[in-house]
Amino acid sequence: MEKEESSKIIRLAHGAGGVLQEELIKFITKDITLKNVNNGIGVEELDDGATIPLKDYDKEIVITADGHTVFPLFFPGGDLGKLSVCGTVNDILMMGAKPLALTSIIIIEEGFNFDTLQKIVHSLNSTATEACVAIIAGDTKVMPRGTLNEIIIATTGIGIKDKKIKIVDNGLKPGDNIIITGSIGDHGTALMANREGLNISTDLESDVSILIEIFNAIKKEIDENLIHAMKDPTRGGMAGALNDWASKSNVSIVIDEEKIPIKKQVSAICDMLGLDSFNIACEGRALMAVDSNQSEIILQKIKKTKLGRDAMIIGEVQKDNPGRVLLKTIVGGTRFIDMPLGEPIPRIC
Amino acid sequence: MEKEESSKIIRLAHGAGGVLQEELIKFITKDITLKNVNNGIGVEELDDGATIPLKDYDKEIVITADGHTVFPLFFPGGDLGKLSVCGTVNDILMMGAKPLALTSIIIIEEGFNFDTLQKIVHSLNSTATEACVAIIAGDTKVMPRGTLNEIIIATTGIGIKDKKIKIVDNGLKPGDNIIITGSIGDHGTALMANREGLNISTDLESDVSILIEIFNAIKKEIDENLIHAMKDPTRGGMAGALNDWASKSNVSIVIDEEKIPIKKQVSAICDMLGLDSFNIACEGRALMAVDSNQSEIILQKIKKTKLGRDAMIIGEVQKDNPGRVLLKTIVGGTRFIDMPLGEPIPRIC
Repeated sequence: MEKEESSKIIRLAHGAGGVLQEELIKFITKDITLKNVNNGIGVEELDDGATIPLKDYDKEIVITADGHTVFPLFFPGGDLGKLSVCGTVNDILMMGAKPLALTSIIIIEEGFNFDTLQKIVHSLNSTATEACVAIIAGDTKVMPRGTLNEIIIATTGIGIKDKKIKIVDNGLKPGDNIIITGSIGDHGTALMANREGLNISTDLESDVSILIEIFNAIKKEIDENLIHAMKDPTRGGMAGALNDWASKSNVSIVIDEEKIPIKKQVSAICDMLGLDSFNIACEGRALMAVDSNQSEIILQKIKKTKLGRDAMIIGEVQKDNPGRVLLKTIVGGTRFIDMPLGEPIPRIC
Repeated sequence: MEKEESSKIIRLAHGAGGVLQEELIKFITKDITLKNVNNGIGVEELDDGATIPLKDYDKEIVITADGHTVFPLFFPGGDLGKLSVCGTVNDILMMGAKPLALTSIIIIEEGFNFDTLQKIVHSLNSTATEACVAIIAGDTKVMPRGTLNEIIIATTGIGIKDKKIKIVDNGLKPGDNIIITGSIGDHGTALMANREGLNISTDLESDVSILIEIFNAIKKEIDENLIHAMKDPTRGGMAGALNDWASKSNVSIVIDEEKIPIKKQVSAICDMLGLDSFNIACEGRALMAVDSNQSEIILQKIKKTKLGRDAMIIGEVQKDNPGRVLLKTIVGGTRFIDMPLGEPIPRIC
């Protein structure tokens, strides 16, 4: 009864990348029946984004969508503009596609400062140039004072990929190795530590970055379908991403705690705040499920990139316990890692 | 000095589709140099939206982006969900393209009611089904109570068109006829009349609609490039759209006041509020600049559609006074119609 009552309004946790977020997405998409829309081209549903195969053409268009409500607008290591581009470009890359273009919808509160807008827009544009994507269309809206807190950006990314490349959430195979390209939880932790009121002093920076150098380093393996799944663990963190994979691929994923790269400051701040670092958002890391015969070669290629120096093979895919994620702890035991319910930490991305 | 001072913050009029909106867009896009981004596919800038030509393929992808902040969420004739789809699909159609898909980013205030969300999402989905477009990707974010007024939606539309079709803002030719597919200003006026506090009673409804039936009726003429420009006059209204064309095509447009279809209630409410109905947003009308030899045939085809019954040829394109829009008034004089400065009427779309 209480659950029913409380589910009648939107809660912060509905946007936090966990179980409640999944519920909200199901609620919003339950009416949508892609197959009922027969518009001659055949739109296929796939992961967070989607693909549009082009008739009589060996490539398909890849589309992803993202809302960016991060606060504060400027944080150690990044800002709203940079985050907007990285989040979207990374989603395209994680589907094995080459990012081409972005649309950017900027919604601003009346009274917002032009100088601050200039900084955000400059960051957005220069990150897009770095990622070699064009901002091809956009919209701006101004909302009356008090109806929006400062500024938010919504982006849609457009990429292109060969039809033969299949990197999907349900692509994990028993025996695959799991790679993480760097330390986990930096973004969310840096943001929380910096947030007004928390008063924590640290040199920790967000990991917000474009994953393109890593993508290019392993392009051969991507083309050869040796990468079975790829995901940037944003909202919901590593735990959210792995649980999503285990559930969609009907396998278990066993992770070795000892191998997980995590910064001391991240562990310390998460402990202090009573948060689980496995659930905290990254904005410049990739998780990959890769063919075990090639995993060491792939790891070495990633480790040669600037962003991937701390990459590690952290676990493997198994047949038993389908749908579950297990952690071999440092002290020798094994425990389940559950899909986070959704940490009620608003405006983390 | 005063101008300089006041331009340092964002004003409501910066989002209102007039001169100040143009300034804001220039400010945001001044850093963007499409040609510097050489990503191998060649992204071409074009109008409100953009096209991505596909190599060795006779079609190109069309992309448009829109933020929807309309308030109240439900208004006579429509709601936020319907408006979001119509606005985006119409932008695609106005470029001569077939709409394929949408992305939908929904940003919601904590505490928002699930029942209301359900109504908006249902309207969004059913309008998309009616338009035969698939909602292929999306995102949801929840913002803390008090940092966003209820709910906004950002959409990006994806369409496809033959490369040979060229319907562009700088495509007007002297001699062309200007067609409007129905009465002007219904959407903005209905919304204002309904808005809390104004207390005006009227049966006027928004014209918010998908223009697909009209598009299909004149598809032959579109394919034959007899339609030189096409635009749905949203923010900035008819005056904004015509001035934009005149300026980009370096021609003048002479409009006959007598011919402009306008509802009595719209005239009356605009007079009462001291607003110019030529500047008020439509959400289900198209302006077209068409080959004068075919304009009567095109008009008759439009008039046979449900949405286009009141269509009229309202003016013509001329060489003199390049960049200007002129009105032949009912009383026999001629006056300029300027680009609106931007009516400070927030959240109209």
